[in-house]
Amino acid sequence: MGKVYLIGAGPGAPDLLTLRAARILECADIVFHDALVHADALALAARARIVAVGKRCSQISTDQRFINRNLVEAAARHDVVVRLKGGDPMIFGRAQEEIDALVAAGIEFEVVPGVTAALAASAELAASLTRRGVSRSVVFATPRIRNDQPERDDSATSGWAQAVAAADTAALYMTRAEAPALLRALLDAGLPANHPVAIVESASLPQARKLYGTLDSLPQLAAETGGGPAVVILGEVLREAVAAAQSTPAADSGTDANPIRQVL
Amino acid sequence: MGKVYLIGAGPGAPDLLTLRAARILECADIVFHDALVHADALALAARARIVAVGKRCSQISTDQRFINRNLVEAAARHDVVVRLKGGDPMIFGRAQEEIDALVAAGIEFEVVPGVTAALAASAELAASLTRRGVSRSVVFATPRIRNDQPERDDSATSGWAQAVAAADTAALYMTRAEAPALLRALLDAGLPANHPVAIVESASLPQARKLYGTLDSLPQLAAETGGGPAVVILGEVLREAVAAAQSTPAADSGTDANPIRQVL
Repeated sequence: MGKVYLIGAGPGAPDLLTLRAARILECADIVFHDALVHADALALAARARIVAVGKRCSQISTDQRFINRNLVEAAARHDVVVRLKGGDPMIFGRAQEEIDALVAAGIEFEVVPGVTAALAASAELAASLTRRGVSRSVVFATPRIRNDQPERDDSATSGWAQAVAAADTAALYMTRAEAPALLRALLDAGLPANHPVAIVESASLPQARKLYGTLDSLPQLAAETGGGPAVVILGEVLREAVAAAQSTPAADSGTDANPIRQVL
Repeated sequence: MGKVYLIGAGPGAPDLLTLRAARILECADIVFHDALVHADALALAARARIVAVGKRCSQISTDQRFINRNLVEAAARHDVVVRLKGGDPMIFGRAQEEIDALVAAGIEFEVVPGVTAALAASAELAASLTRRGVSRSVVFATPRIRNDQPERDDSATSGWAQAVAAADTAALYMTRAEAPALLRALLDAGLPANHPVAIVESASLPQARKLYGTLDSLPQLAAETGGGPAVVILGEVLREAVAAAQSTPAADSGTDANPIRQVL
């Protein structure tokens, strides 16, 4: 029986893999990877069979069961099996379902942590998520606003919007289409319309973009993003950066009265 | 003028540095590092002068101003200046004060994100911080319970305990001595006494320890830890792991009626 490594590939840039992740990939016999993993990261696994298993924006439980079964079967045939996930495996990575399947099958495994997207977004913004006297709590959350994807036992999850409102800083892993519903939920939870907000798209990659605004401009900001993965950062830690962005004329539209400014 | 790199060294194990961090360290002329950075990580900076600037458990603002001034002065004399911080620079790393000093001095800088301790703790526990139907929000917080360290403008930070209670999962970066006050604050915020809890000490290092219990046992768990850095994880995502630990006899005390069990 082989061993399965659940590895965080980091936020996107291949050199934000950890040394441990790179070393294990170099020894891998087979790699099951998410859609957002960089080709250069996969190229490290020179000996391995590479299998794409991720779907962006649409994950259904049959897919997850298929992945679980693949991991168990691969461990019976290979020594080094890698499950390579975007960011960190243990935060919005569905790792528990895979771990539970490996435990049930008696297969040895190891989790290799990675740099989660919110930390790369914070680095892009040069804005710390915590700051003395301003923020001592940061919540990472995925909004639940679509009714077409019922969750198993959803009543057990507390209100994500209340958790966002209660923390000093928040990082939301979301899709562009969710922005209008996100705005409504966060206003309902008590955040002010002028709460400082930034969206970072494709954090850590050459095509990274930063958009600054206030909570009420979130749908407009989201509409300016392209197809890359986006993280929304909210909180007082961004107040100065938002004010600076709003006082700088937008490069593409000098006559635009809209407070939204794309800075990078 | 040189460039300053604010680099996350990761949770402790030197091979949890990123490839980018390792490459920059190899080119560094001078490295200012925190107390918890591993010697093998510093050894990568073979050409550099190594300067220890971190203090554990006691950081006062004069120290921070001293570090800021050192970074600015070093950039005037060296090409590659590294500020190496435990975990990720942007989460409980005081990075903003250093960034602000570099911006004010007109010095080029780059933030290199790292693996924050809570993610390594989650990997040690093999317990995902989020889980479908159980947790879609995770808050990282530092408790504020000591009155001997007044904070500048503390009224601006909302209640950390309320933020912890509002999120599905929490990771607290704390010291052993803070556990009794932490327990009182979290009970006051509405968490139940039997809320599942784990403490991970020295996550990612060979001497890592995991202790499982419930919220009301937190002071006893903390008393069992040694001197390593500790992260407390709280939440329903740990319920099965806590139950499993409580049903396993403790290795060191078979007659102990205490529900606290050290598993690793």
